[in-house]
Amino acid sequence: MKKYKFSEAVKRLKSSEIRELMKLTTRPNLIVFGGGSPDPQLFPYESVKKIQSKWDAEKAAMAYQYGPTPGIPPIQKALRSWVTDHHISLEGQSIFVSSGAQQSLSLISCAFVNLGTKIVVENPTFIGAMACFQINGAEFLWAELENDGVDLNQLESYFKNDKPVFFYTIPNFQNPSGITMSMQKRMELLELAHKYQVLIIEDDPYVELYYEGSPEDYRSLKSLDKNNIVINIGTFSKMLSPGMRVGWMVGPELPVSKCEVARQSQDACGSSFTQMLCADYVSSGMIYPSLEKIREGYRIKRNLMKNAIESYFPDWIKRSEPKGGFFFWIDLQGRIGSKELFKRAIDKGVAVITGHAFMPPGDGERCCRLSFSSSKKEDIGKGIKILGDILKKL
Amino acid sequence: MKKYKFSEAVKRLKSSEIRELMKLTTRPNLIVFGGGSPDPQLFPYESVKKIQSKWDAEKAAMAYQYGPTPGIPPIQKALRSWVTDHHISLEGQSIFVSSGAQQSLSLISCAFVNLGTKIVVENPTFIGAMACFQINGAEFLWAELENDGVDLNQLESYFKNDKPVFFYTIPNFQNPSGITMSMQKRMELLELAHKYQVLIIEDDPYVELYYEGSPEDYRSLKSLDKNNIVINIGTFSKMLSPGMRVGWMVGPELPVSKCEVARQSQDACGSSFTQMLCADYVSSGMIYPSLEKIREGYRIKRNLMKNAIESYFPDWIKRSEPKGGFFFWIDLQGRIGSKELFKRAIDKGVAVITGHAFMPPGDGERCCRLSFSSSKKEDIGKGIKILGDILKKL
Repeated sequence: MKKYKFSEAVKRLKSSEIRELMKLTTRPNLIVFGGGSPDPQLFPYESVKKIQSKWDAEKAAMAYQYGPTPGIPPIQKALRSWVTDHHISLEGQSIFVSSGAQQSLSLISCAFVNLGTKIVVENPTFIGAMACFQINGAEFLWAELENDGVDLNQLESYFKNDKPVFFYTIPNFQNPSGITMSMQKRMELLELAHKYQVLIIEDDPYVELYYEGSPEDYRSLKSLDKNNIVINIGTFSKMLSPGMRVGWMVGPELPVSKCEVARQSQDACGSSFTQMLCADYVSSGMIYPSLEKIREGYRIKRNLMKNAIESYFPDWIKRSEPKGGFFFWIDLQGRIGSKELFKRAIDKGVAVITGHAFMPPGDGERCCRLSFSSSKKEDIGKGIKILGDILKKL
Repeated sequence: MKKYKFSEAVKRLKSSEIRELMKLTTRPNLIVFGGGSPDPQLFPYESVKKIQSKWDAEKAAMAYQYGPTPGIPPIQKALRSWVTDHHISLEGQSIFVSSGAQQSLSLISCAFVNLGTKIVVENPTFIGAMACFQINGAEFLWAELENDGVDLNQLESYFKNDKPVFFYTIPNFQNPSGITMSMQKRMELLELAHKYQVLIIEDDPYVELYYEGSPEDYRSLKSLDKNNIVINIGTFSKMLSPGMRVGWMVGPELPVSKCEVARQSQDACGSSFTQMLCADYVSSGMIYPSLEKIREGYRIKRNLMKNAIESYFPDWIKRSEPKGGFFFWIDLQGRIGSKELFKRAIDKGVAVITGHAFMPPGDGERCCRLSFSSSKKEDIGKGIKILGDILKKL
């Protein structure tokens, strides 16, 4: 074949400079704070083995077969009980099981976004969400994040003047910033969305990974939604393992049904096998002690990174104060560009990820994301000290 | 929320009349020839258990973690050896592991199809492919299927006059028609595609399910491709189980890399867990005796349906002669519309699927697809007799 004619859609997703930089992070013996993968030591291997050993012929047959597009009956049942326990009313709502949060976002993008469709995202926001909104040609309106969540004044101005089709938010331990939206802002956001009739897409992958406070402090927008204006996205990637590729969305029946239609063309259905594992993980109750262990494991790492930053970073650095999740967000205050920091850090054996991945053009030089989730405990202090030494010399 | 603004893409995929009809096929106690699911009795449950019991800590950690977008290293390795054994040269080619053939098709659609992009498909063709080409706005050019494969004269005329971006074909035991492309036509097709520089998308899910002849009779277009003009799509859905959601494509590096970019936005990566199961299924060699059993199981059912059709259907019915796969294709010769046959059959306890699902508007009344894959052996003769009784009364 001499010449290919590719679609406008993939042309919008050119390999970026930042992706090229990230290829450097696969060098051996690096301390990698750049990724966002879970800690393999916290996967519940034994629970999954036990679950599978109990499958009878009927369960096995279902696990090996095609399933309904919205998920096999056992995972539907398990999730109905799970979200209800999390204060989400299912009246007029559908649950749709996806192959992870990324697919949920992709289906929502497919259902709502045309070329030029306006959407609001947080600044910074999740790189995977950007990709799936971009491929359908969305026009991004960036709303600044404050320490207690999105800037509501800016958001209202967008809602009023630009009539976006939805607002995409990660209210808990946001990726990449680690910021959590205050309860006050959650209530106000819901009112604003209702007033201007803008759908809220709530991405909540880290909600179970809180290291202080109680679940009440991190209640989902969906659980507070009186006006049927939120689609909530959940995932087993951080509660069990991302290797399952099982996530879900819960929201008003009509938009969820459009996502179902879109999915029939995208991959027909998810893995019944891994859906069955996730269903049993919830319905057996094994998930509860497992989550305790997972929280404790990450809490230790969060504290290690927090203490190291306090010890080794210069005072002028601004950083977020994550109460859960995987990430610290560092504001370099313009004293060094994030790409320059990236390069110097890689040379010393530490990988970070620069703000460019998460921000509109022009903003990325100011910030970096540091993840503690998959680093070895003994590496966290070491890596932060190396970064601190670079920063102190500026 | 009072009113949603959905995308043009999902508007193109309205719930069809045929989908409404298909809902009737979930009635209890029906003999269902309408589906296309594998026989749960032929899934290799014991092999998969054995595979998992041998996973060490390293394999388990990889199976539970996020994987690279093109597939984890063990499945890449297993498939490189698998496709090479199937006479496909990997020079200048990439293998890309997807979540099943439907996703491979969806990614190809995303990479190549804009609103109004012309593509050629067979008449009839696979319903899932139609959906993923439709959602991106493809304009379909329908090439008639003859007993030995697509009408090459019509195809050449399309290639010459319409400059389609690709031709989508299922050369072996086609879904829905059961037709296999002759070796002669394969060679001529490859020449035509090269002459007019039209990419061939070869969907080959049933290739291992041959019930007569030898693998040489069903060699993939890709294995015969001297001009780098074919993307071949394979899947574990029929060789192991569709519950795995593991498939692949192999083709020239550039278009496959575009599919990878598209996938990063669609679901980031597939299930490492089920990819590892599929990898070990191939690399352990367990796949070979398993495929023997699977072929033998379906061969028996194919023969049961063939014999029943010969015994119970009137002579004027035209039908395909499937040498493998799951399907018989019935031409009703205009003596009864397929929807009318569907209704009468459902009333008597048998479900078929009408041609509308697979054909351009206006053609569907003429034909029906009968699948023997998931019916109980004892039901095949019974169901075919019921259909025969209806047809004989016309």
